[in-house]
Amino acid sequence: MEESQYPKTFRNAVNRLKDRANYDHETVHDIVDSASVLHVSFMPSRMDDDPFPTILPMLGGFGLYNAPGATESSPTTLYLHGHISSRFFKISSTSGKTTWEEDGLPGLPICVCATHMDGLVLALTPFNHSTNYRSAVIHGYATLVTDSAEKNYALHMITDNVLTDRWANSRVPPTEAEMKATGVIKVDIVSASAKVRAYTAGNDKADLEDPDVSGKIWTGVIPAFLKYETPVPAKENAVKEIPKYITQWIEEKNKQAEEYARTIASRAKK
Amino acid sequence: MEESQYPKTFRNAVNRLKDRANYDHETVHDIVDSASVLHVSFMPSRMDDDPFPTILPMLGGFGLYNAPGATESSPTTLYLHGHISSRFFKISSTSGKTTWEEDGLPGLPICVCATHMDGLVLALTPFNHSTNYRSAVIHGYATLVTDSAEKNYALHMITDNVLTDRWANSRVPPTEAEMKATGVIKVDIVSASAKVRAYTAGNDKADLEDPDVSGKIWTGVIPAFLKYETPVPAKENAVKEIPKYITQWIEEKNKQAEEYARTIASRAKK
Repeated sequence: MEESQYPKTFRNAVNRLKDRANYDHETVHDIVDSASVLHVSFMPSRMDDDPFPTILPMLGGFGLYNAPGATESSPTTLYLHGHISSRFFKISSTSGKTTWEEDGLPGLPICVCATHMDGLVLALTPFNHSTNYRSAVIHGYATLVTDSAEKNYALHMITDNVLTDRWANSRVPPTEAEMKATGVIKVDIVSASAKVRAYTAGNDKADLEDPDVSGKIWTGVIPAFLKYETPVPAKENAVKEIPKYITQWIEEKNKQAEEYARTIASRAKK
Repeated sequence: MEESQYPKTFRNAVNRLKDRANYDHETVHDIVDSASVLHVSFMPSRMDDDPFPTILPMLGGFGLYNAPGATESSPTTLYLHGHISSRFFKISSTSGKTTWEEDGLPGLPICVCATHMDGLVLALTPFNHSTNYRSAVIHGYATLVTDSAEKNYALHMITDNVLTDRWANSRVPPTEAEMKATGVIKVDIVSASAKVRAYTAGNDKADLEDPDVSGKIWTGVIPAFLKYETPVPAKENAVKEIPKYITQWIEEKNKQAEEYARTIASRAKK
């Protein structure tokens, strides 16, 4: 079966270290959905007014809302969430004053990047040092979700993406005021790609053959992963035992992440 | 003693949740220097040609090169490094064809963001869910470092920033070919700010007073930190024992990160 892929364009084509590049939906979506934070970049002003893009750390995830006949490989939408009064939400909404509307664009052009740091790669020379990582870069048009059912769907999905089953295990549905104060952005994706480095240290032959170098310098990988610790209850918490869906999630998440980082640390380069 | 601060401008002023905002050098620099990865955003083309900014994950750190009389609180420079053939380095160099030169700017306008995820904040309602985090956002003009001594200084600093003392414990100095293939960017900072959330879950009175809510839903924080694991030697590694500067660094880094994440998880909101 052929994998569903994002089209390779001038915007997302990986030109260097092409063996690390990947365009299939599954790889991109996995990296984004399992990331603890997404970095979102956009131009707050016209370049003439202020030439700087900006970056916001945000939470989000991929979703498939109201797509009849959709399969797992159907193109999905990236949803982001935040407080409605933030600048990002103001300029994503169709207030009639946005520069992207004036320019005839279908939304605010943004870039979203998710990165996992999976290990420090210590080579014999600083030049060959590297990191094991997975990163996904997505370009798309951001607009504010106005349909309340879609907004509810996205908030449910994003909450469960942070911690499986948390939505059903919290006080839902949100009140009208809570829904009003929360903004959800949908991103129509125009291109996406992933880059993955997942193998042992690479060293030059000359360094390996020099006993003064290889005999003295340790080379290998320090695996790394985001570890979740034992939960710390709030002062007002009234539920004595930490629920199983939380402890199980932590256990599985840590196990998976640790295993991945350790496994790739000794893997040979393809 | 007054702390050195970045000036508050329209670009970096935190408008929401101002209690989380911070502009002093120390906070910003600590967040950036201890981050495992930096996200760098820039406009690869003119907006008319392509309206999308892009993001690259990179390594870097703050440095003070050749600044006579400089003190710890002197304005420092942010250095980033990567392979010279990447698009970012091409458009940061003064090839005479860059759009920023045509526009009379002193460098490529970029934004750099460093984020630490320190914990998942589980409130009674999805709306009050949050994360403990530290993030720094920097705006500045990027140019390629051409002075070879400064480049050497920056590479040394960035390598040791990844792992203390690694530079001196690897095959240095780099060869001429290695230096040629490596690009170092310096960022002249025009604004910078940090945002930090570092406390327990916040809940609404109405939810806490409703036994159907507070009696059933666990609320608190799941601390999180980037954990470094036992190093995995490369197949060709010839140094039997893992050197102490590596094992000590891992131990200290993990201890510090874990303690921070756990301590703030039970801290009250100021």
